[in-house]
Formats: sequence, structure tokens, C-alpha cells
Amino acid sequence: MGTTILDAARELGVGIENICGGRQTCAKCRVNVATGQFAKYGLTSSAEHVSPVESREAAYRDEKAIRADERLACVTKVCGDVVINVPPEAQAQKQVVRKSASNRVIDVDPAVRQVYIEVEPAAIGDRRSDLERVQQALRTQWGFEQVTLDAKAIPMLGKVLREGQWKVTVTIWQEREIIRLLPRYAEGMIGLALDLGTTSIAAYLCDLRTGEVLATETAMNPQIAYGEDLMSRVSYGMMNADGVSKLHRAVIRAVNALAVNATKACQLRPEDIVDMVIVGNPIMEHLLLGIDPVELGGAPFALTVRQALDLKARDMGLKLHPGAYVHLLPAQAGHVGADCTAVALAEAPHKSAELTLIVDVGTNAEILLGDEHGLLSASSPTGPAFEGAQIVHGQRAAPGAIERVRIDPQTLEARFKIIGQELWSDALPAEAINATGICGSGIIEAVVEMFLAGIINGEGRFIEREHPRLIADADGRRRSYLLASAEQSSSGTPIVITQADVRAIQLAKAALYAGVKLLMTHYGNPNIQRILLAGAFGSYIDPKYAMMLGLIPDCDLARVVAVGNAAGDGARIALLNKGQRLEATHIAQTVQYVETATDKDFQTAFVEAIHIPHAVDKFPHLADSLPANIGVGAERKRRRTTTQVMVNSALSDQSPLPTETDS
Amino acid sequence: MGTTILDAARELGVGIENICGGRQTCAKCRVNVATGQFAKYGLTSSAEHVSPVESREAAYRDEKAIRADERLACVTKVCGDVVINVPPEAQAQKQVVRKSASNRVIDVDPAVRQVYIEVEPAAIGDRRSDLERVQQALRTQWGFEQVTLDAKAIPMLGKVLREGQWKVTVTIWQEREIIRLLPRYAEGMIGLALDLGTTSIAAYLCDLRTGEVLATETAMNPQIAYGEDLMSRVSYGMMNADGVSKLHRAVIRAVNALAVNATKACQLRPEDIVDMVIVGNPIMEHLLLGIDPVELGGAPFALTVRQALDLKARDMGLKLHPGAYVHLLPAQAGHVGADCTAVALAEAPHKSAELTLIVDVGTNAEILLGDEHGLLSASSPTGPAFEGAQIVHGQRAAPGAIERVRIDPQTLEARFKIIGQELWSDALPAEAINATGICGSGIIEAVVEMFLAGIINGEGRFIEREHPRLIADADGRRRSYLLASAEQSSSGTPIVITQADVRAIQLAKAALYAGVKLLMTHYGNPNIQRILLAGAFGSYIDPKYAMMLGLIPDCDLARVVAVGNAAGDGARIALLNKGQRLEATHIAQTVQYVETATDKDFQTAFVEAIHIPHAVDKFPHLADSLPANIGVGAERKRRRTTTQVMVNSALSDQSPLPTETDS
Repeated sequence: MGTTILDAARELGVGIENICGGRQTCAKCRVNVATGQFAKYGLTSSAEHVSPVESREAAYRDEKAIRADERLACVTKVCGDVVINVPPEAQAQKQVVRKSASNRVIDVDPAVRQVYIEVEPAAIGDRRSDLERVQQALRTQWGFEQVTLDAKAIPMLGKVLREGQWKVTVTIWQEREIIRLLPRYAEGMIGLALDLGTTSIAAYLCDLRTGEVLATETAMNPQIAYGEDLMSRVSYGMMNADGVSKLHRAVIRAVNALAVNATKACQLRPEDIVDMVIVGNPIMEHLLLGIDPVELGGAPFALTVRQALDLKARDMGLKLHPGAYVHLLPAQAGHVGADCTAVALAEAPHKSAELTLIVDVGTNAEILLGDEHGLLSASSPTGPAFEGAQIVHGQRAAPGAIERVRIDPQTLEARFKIIGQELWSDALPAEAINATGICGSGIIEAVVEMFLAGIINGEGRFIEREHPRLIADADGRRRSYLLASAEQSSSGTPIVITQADVRAIQLAKAALYAGVKLLMTHYGNPNIQRILLAGAFGSYIDPKYAMMLGLIPDCDLARVVAVGNAAGDGARIALLNKGQRLEATHIAQTVQYVETATDKDFQTAFVEAIHIPHAVDKFPHLADSLPANIGVGAERKRRRTTTQVMVNSALSDQSPLPTETDS
Repeated sequence: MGTTILDAARELGVGIENICGGRQTCAKCRVNVATGQFAKYGLTSSAEHVSPVESREAAYRDEKAIRADERLACVTKVCGDVVINVPPEAQAQKQVVRKSASNRVIDVDPAVRQVYIEVEPAAIGDRRSDLERVQQALRTQWGFEQVTLDAKAIPMLGKVLREGQWKVTVTIWQEREIIRLLPRYAEGMIGLALDLGTTSIAAYLCDLRTGEVLATETAMNPQIAYGEDLMSRVSYGMMNADGVSKLHRAVIRAVNALAVNATKACQLRPEDIVDMVIVGNPIMEHLLLGIDPVELGGAPFALTVRQALDLKARDMGLKLHPGAYVHLLPAQAGHVGADCTAVALAEAPHKSAELTLIVDVGTNAEILLGDEHGLLSASSPTGPAFEGAQIVHGQRAAPGAIERVRIDPQTLEARFKIIGQELWSDALPAEAINATGICGSGIIEAVVEMFLAGIINGEGRFIEREHPRLIADADGRRRSYLLASAEQSSSGTPIVITQADVRAIQLAKAALYAGVKLLMTHYGNPNIQRILLAGAFGSYIDPKYAMMLGLIPDCDLARVVAVGNAAGDGARIALLNKGQRLEATHIAQTVQYVETATDKDFQTAFVEAIHIPHAVDKFPHLADSLPANIGVGAERKRRRTTTQVMVNSALSDQSPLPTETDS
């Protein structure tokens, strides 16, 4: 007779949403009492078997427009056999599915919790302070012991209690600190997950009750003004008296601006953000914290901090809610940061039976290799070429950028596709194309196609000759390839791929591949069962071309998947689930880190990987179509880059080239 | 053979000072090895029975000028029977004696501790961060587990470690947070204890290793500009849109200025302050925290916070070391604050077998009554009259102020003594006196003497008549007494006591006495064994006159003692000893608070205590010398203030009046 549906469900292990603590305020616990015989349970359920609607509930039902078939689980008592249907919106444990390779289900259980309490009013003879009475309400109504009050909330406490007539909604961090007080019953608990990249910053504004992403905002990292890659920023900090401070202030301003923009998109304010998770590579995180990253610029690459940190946003200069904390996920070593930990958190390779290689390509590439038996990690300094920087007509992946390229090996004519258009360039009038530049995936395809068409050799050198597509430079040397004509370009200037562009891509891919190679060597050169390409770049790249360029090792092409911004997803997971923060620390502590910067095998692998792996062994049909001089290059290369020849086996049945009969 | 003197002493329960952890850096552990036979121990001690000076120690001895008979306990090993003399400066447990009624010995054991560590340098293959290596050094070298790093210290960590070549001195708060890092071995740990009074603020800068007070600074509370007493400040906050914020900012500025001045006096900077304790009455503490004190202006007088708080100084707007915490002692109830808790901590009446009354007279009076069986506390709104405010020629106790007054009952001539001069006014030429005004103790003596000389009656009214000492006002009424002539005054204006002055003192003393009376009633009207007068005012007041005015109840006059600024001393004790902070919480939780503001007995007692208690019953020799009309007043008063008649028994053998034979 005395048990509410809420309590009965809890005893049976079914959580029903309940923010107000059974005070008929939140109306989140609406359930249906089923009617009829339930043979499988051996009972007859009836609306008569629960307590009738009492006067207070009746009034409340009108106010909240509760349907006739709905009852509030918090006040409705079980009086006999009943079957209760709990609709999804009333289920306590919200879940979000990460739409990616892993399709992981994330329980929404954030580090902040918001509860409604009714506080004993101040009275003569009661010496207790407002805070003590709030603490008592939290203890008796929610079971929170020893909750403190953030310094910045102290001046508000008395006002909020009286404005709410002793009914307040309290936001509590990690079950131990009140960080926000709102009068009366209130909803709304917003968090921000941030992926702080060298080139770009991505912010995800999340509803911390439902787990929903409310807004996604990205911005360029303004530190680019002080250096495009990590090492140039370290140098800037070293060479300029105020350098570190400038870099620090620039990124803090950028994060604050993202918080403003993301909240504005939802008619919210940055002060509504009550929790935040940030991931980034070590140098980005050090600069974020105001730490001079000079130690990360040379051996022994000592991190100042590596563990997860919980810091007050205000102490970092971040303008969120005054009481909000920022959680920084743990880094692993000098070159593998919280972003890599976040990728592992998002893709959970350490929980997979399949041997997985994860490559997160940014200005630095983070590489993870392993399965449920253990993980290896490494970092490779790819530089920003894959992000379109250091390429003459390079640009970020954005509408107008050339993202796909095909070159006819006979005519050397190019056809391409730009982001934002359905049709390829050869299906459009030249003036309708308006190409603005070439992005990372475009340049990768261009280099592979240029090699296959005999425009460059396996060493990446232009095979110079008279041809309308080969443009002469000031010295008269024909070492640029005309990809898009002046008519096809938005600026009226032709878009070309230069010798320097090819070199930049070769260096970037060699760095990445050498890192992968190093981990594979450490692992005993295993057969990789799946490859996940993470990062914005990973989403655009065609896995076939990545393999043909020698970016990633041999694998069933169907098992190479782009997983988007996995680091950002990992940050979001840690924002939504406090247990995953502990999981991140577990990952960071157990992953085996392999230092590329001081490994001589890495240097060797890097030099070997400079070349473009030829596809002749695996694609014999190509042999005839290749110009004679390519064969020579391939001969030399085969000797020097034996480990890379295996790379392309997966391409055999999915050749991107015109299918011809085998010779 | 392997045990150092340091370790051996520790095992025997004798602490030897040791900051560097036995690394021959601090030279604090210098001890003497005694030589000769020690019959009482049954052994022969010899310098041969300890290990010889080794090369490293020898070099170090030269550097630090260590005397030949001194050995470093941290490296000298015990090899046989020895007697070791540990000089006071080498004893680990520093103590300070509080020079007061209690002469309490305070162990120096502050909430911050400073230790020297040698950290493993960063090395290739060691993935740990600088912070992890510091944490490990703290664990292995000092036994500190789980120490975190303050957010504001994060940017310094790497720099300090490298500047100090991995030898650093770490300041740790409450054994759990690194708040400061200094390169190499460093000494110096400074704290500030602050008594935040309604009228004045006193700051004590302390050496946290020795317990020594390095500087004492006082300042007026700048909030006086917004209202002299507490209630007028509450009103100011209520009546002005920006009022609370103005009051808050004013006190924060004042505390920051005191920190600057106190440190400047010792060639230090406010950033050298690594710990702070603040005590004050509830309204002062609420304003300090930016809390609108409006709730303390009326019943039920609800405090916003009552428990002890540890807040970052920076979160309060205080400019100390960036990592410093401020500890606020706990308050007891709406009108009895941390200042009263601090007085109890300093005087420890709850540890005394004697029933003790403590009166801390400020703009509010805090009253404590009790012994080891329990304590009662109350607060009385005395207003600032005792501090010289609201008195026409009133001033704070400072050089030039009249502090002692005697009036000849025959001639009504006054003689007085001013602060800063040895001789009384009648022993000095008029022009050498330069009286600037009258302070609290002076006005109390003046009112008592005026009553005894028949200038005023028991109701405090002037007995008007023609007399050169009785000055006529504009209405021709002679209701001012000429205390110091124009020649005796520094300004050339006579110093007088007006009817309004007498009224102000009557109201103040009645409020105080009514509070004392209320506690005594609650206690069952016990015999008080000693009375402690706390506060700056308490130091100047003559206990006899306090009793004659009816300020304090009956007690052996020899057991009435001025204890100076006990609240400030309590703050200092909590600064020097972290265990005393827990003791303060214990006091605050166990003291029984009696609310004066809503108690009808208090109102009655207040009205009754307005009169000046006549001394006739206890001093029959006075009967003849009193003018006839005093007798009438005394008759009326005797009926109404029976509880006060007992007040003066202690005066019988120490009468301040001319000794005459009993009539």
C-alpha cells in the first residue's frame, strides 16, 4: 500500500526519470498503467490497482496537461497487481548512440547533476545557516553527503532561496560541490565538449540530460597566425618575450568565442554552460593552460601535466558559468595527448576482438594500434599539408574545394569534383565550376593519379616534357601540373599542382606511414583487421587512394572506415558520462606509447616511405599503360620500400582505374 | 650503525627541525653531542659514538659556518651510547606563548607546510609528467599522498623545476594541494591573521615556521563612510542599488591595503603570504564574502554561511600569493560570529575549571559565559560609543586621548591623564598637555566620576546649577561638564562631556550589561570567578570603573583582566595551528547561543540597566558625600535594578575614591 510506482520500479532495477525528488514539480515520471490479463506474468493489471488521483495531483495534472492515461510514478502507489509501461522519455537512463564505425551506446550520466530541493525556511531559534539547511535538504531528499558550495555561488545563496521561497534547483558537480543555484524548479543543464586542434577547434554543445548535441561550432585556431604547425608555435613561444602569453590568450579568446557562438545558436548564453571537457594534443593543451611548451619541442619531450585535470573554468580564463569546471582528459606522453585518449575512448579499440589501426590525421597524426589485449600509441609530425596548408592552391575542405581527381593517362586531361557540387567537372560547363582550391583528399588523389598517369615518377619527381598540361616555370622547367583551367577556377587563375606540393604530400604521408610502421614493428607486424580514419580529413579521404599513396597499410578495403572527429566524440562521451572519464584515465595508463621522435627505426621507415608505392605488383594490368621510365623508378623503389609493397593488395578488386583486361 | 640522530630522535618522540628532508640543505637540525658520564642514563656519551664528518658534510659545514661542536642530525649516525642536546632553535615543534590572561602555549603547526624535494629529472623513455615526478618525490621523500597542483601554479611548474635543476621547495596546503613552487632550497612562509571589526581592522603578519608576529597593522574599516554601526551598514546595502557591492569592495580594498602595508614593513610583498585566517562578526564576514547582510538585519537573523570555509584568496578578490587559501573561522549564530569563536579559541574558557565571563567590546559586544562544562554566548548591540564614536569629543584610543579621569567632588575640578604621557594633567603646565579628545576608557571614568561628584544623577541627568565647570548650552541649560580647558586642549577648544555623551554611554553599557545578565539568567545566576575584557577597548578600561558604571557584573576585582584583542589572537592561533581550526569548529558547534534581539528578558534588563548603579550599599562611606537628590534617584533605581546592586562588591577594598572612615 505504501510503495510508489517510482520506488517499486527502482527496487526492480528500473530507473524512472525524476528530477524533483517526488515533489510533483518536474512531471518527468509519467507512466501508463496497463489494463488486462498478462499471462506471461500470471496477473491481471488494472488502473484500479493503483491509488486514485488525489487533490494535489489533480490540480497539478491540469497545470501540466497530463493525459488521462498517464500517472505520476512518484505519487501513484501500488495497491495490487499491475503492469506499468515506462515510455522512453520517462526512463531515467538516457542513452545516445554514437553514429560511427562502432555505433556505441553511451549512457547519459554526466559529472554534473541537477536536483530540485525544498529547503526548511529560516526560523527563529534555528541557528543553522542557509547553507546548512540546503545541505540537509540534499542529504535527506537526495542522499548527497558533504556537499560544499563554490565560492562564487556564496553571494547568491540567500537571494535564490528567498526568491524561490525555499524551493531551489541545485547543480552539483561530482556529487560534492554546488556550482549553481536556481530559484524554484528549473530545467536545463548544458555542457560543452571541445576538440582543440592545431589548425581547427570544434565545439559540441550538449544537453546534459538527454545527451543531445544542441549545436556544433568550429573555428580556425587563431594561433595559426603565430605558426602553422606545432613546432613553429613552440618556436614562437621561445623566440618572443611575450610569445607563450600571446598564444595562450589567443586560444582562450577563441574558446570563449566558440562558447558564445554555440550557445547563441540555441538562444542560450555561455553562462548556461555548467560543465566542459577539452581534448587536444599536448602542445595545444599546454598552451591552453598557459604552460610554455618549450620542453615538448625537444627530447626528452617532458609533459608538465599528463593526468586528467579538473579546473575551474574561471581559473583558466574561460567564461562559462562562474562555478563550472573544465575536465581535461589525460595525455599519454610528450607527443600523444588527450586527443588520442579521446579517440580511443570513442572507438574503444581496447574493447574490440579485432586488431584495429586508428589514424587521426591532423597537423600531427595520432596512431593507435591494438585490440582487447592491449593498445600501442604513437604520434607522427605530418604537418598541415593534408589540411591544405603548405600547398600552393591548398585549402581546407569546404565548398569549392577540389576533393576528387581523375587523370586520363593518355591525354593527361583531368576531371575533378568539388565539394558542394554533385557533378564532376567534365559534366559541367567550365564557368559553372568555380573551383576555389584543392583540399587534402583532392591533393592525395591528384598525386596518386599523377603517378599513375606518368606525370611524376615513384620518387615524386615530375617527368618533364612538352605537354599543354605541364606548365613551365620561370626556369623553363615543366614541373607543375594544370589541374583546373582559369575558366574552371573561381579566381580566374589556373589551379596547379607543383613539384613542391608533391614533395609536401610525400613528406606528410611518409611521416604518417613511418609511425604506423613503427607500431606494426612493435606489434610483430600483425595482420590489421580494420582501419579507422579519424579527423575531419579522414571523413573526406577515399580509402583506396590513401592506400595507393601509401598512407595506410594493407587491409581489406571494406574494413577501412572514416569515423569523423573521433577526438571530439571522445570529448563528448567524457562530457556525458563521468565513468568514461575514469575509463580515459585507464586507457592513458595502460596504453603502450612508442616515441617516434627518437626512434631510429622511425627515421629509416620515414626515408623509405618518401616514395610513392607502385601498384605494379598488385595491379599487373597497369604495367603496360605505364611509361617506360616509370619502370626504372619502380625498380629502385622496390628494393628500398619493400615493406610498402604489401600496401595495395586490397585494391585488386576495387581499382579506381579504368578497368582493362589483364595483360 | 644505520640510524641517524634525526631518525633516532623521532623514534624517541623528539622532533628535530628538518625542512630539507635530510639532504644537507637547510642546516636546521644542528645538535650537540654531549661528552662525559651520564649517571642518570647509565651511559657515557662521546663524540666518538657518532659517525665522523664525511666529505660532503665537511664542505657543507664550511659553507654554512657550522660550529665545531655542532653536528647535522640528518646525516650524523648513532654508533654507540650518546646524549644529544637539541637546542631550542633545532626543536621541530616551535611554540609561541600567547601573552595574556591564559598565557597559552600554541604549537606552531600551520595548515601550510613547506618542504624541499629533489625531483627525478625528465629523461627519454620516462613518459611521466613533471607533476607526476614531483608527486612521486613528495610521496617518497615526505610521505605526502595524492597531492594536487593549484591551477595557478600549473604554468610555473616546468620553469621552476628546471631553474632549480630539479631541486625545489614546495608549499603544500593541508597536505593535499601544492600552492607554491620555489626553485632550489628556500625558506620563508608567511601568513596573515585578520580581525575584521566594524570600526577597525587589525592584521597580524606571522612567520609560519617560528610563529613570530612580524608586523601588526591596523586600519579603520572604510565601510564607516557608509554607516558607523552594523545596522546602518545593513540599511545602506538595502537602500542603495549598488550598496552591498560598494561595502564589499571597500572592505576588500582595505584588507588588500593592510596586506601591502604589513608586508612592506618587513621588506616582503603580499604575494609572499601563503595562508590567511579571517575572523569578524557575521555582518562583516557576509560583506567580506559579497553576501547581502539584509537577513541579519531582522528576525530570524539567518546566516548564509556559518561553518568554517576554505576559499581561494583570489576568488575573494584578495591579492595574496595566487595559490593562497583564506580560512574563515565558523560563526555561531546570526549575531555571534567568527570573532566570538576566535575569542573562545584564544581564551579557551571551555577548558577552564573557573566560571569565566568574557566580554569583547566593539561596536557589537560578544559575550561568553561558561567553563569546562559548557559555554553560553550572546551578542549585544552596544554601538560605537565605547570606541569614542557618537561622543562630542570622543576619539579612538590613541596618543593625546584622555584615558583616565578624576573629579574632586568638592570643587568639581578634573584631573586627567592622556595616552602617551606619564604624568597626570595636574602635574603638567596646561600648555604641555595637548589633549586631543577623550577615548572609551576616559569617557567611562568621566561618567562614573561625574556621578560620584554629583554632577549627574543615577538616571544620568545633569544636576543643573551655577558652576564654572558646568557649561551653559544655547538654551541656558547647564548640561555640559568642562573636562579640559581650552589651554589643555590641542585644538584650543575646551573638551566637554555633554548630556548626549552621558546618554550614549548609558545606552551602550545597558546593552552590554543586559546581554551579560541574560546569559547569567540562563546559567542560573552563578558566581563568576573571573572576567576577561577583550578588544582594544578592554585593554584600556579600568576594571573598577567598568564595575562602577555597571558594565560588568560582580567579581573579585583581581580576577578582572584585560586580554587585549583576543579575537585577533584567536585568528592568529588558527593561522599557526591547523588543529585549532578543528577546535574552533568544535567550539562553534557546542556553544549554546542565546539570542538577545528577540528575548523579552533582554529588553527588560536593558531598560533596567540604563541607570548608573549607585555604590551606596557597598560603599557606605560615600553616603554622606553624595548630594541629597542623588539619594532620591538611588531609591528609584534600587527598586528597578536590583540585579545590579551586587555589581560593586569587589570594589570594597580597592575603592578608587578618597579613603574616608566608614560612617
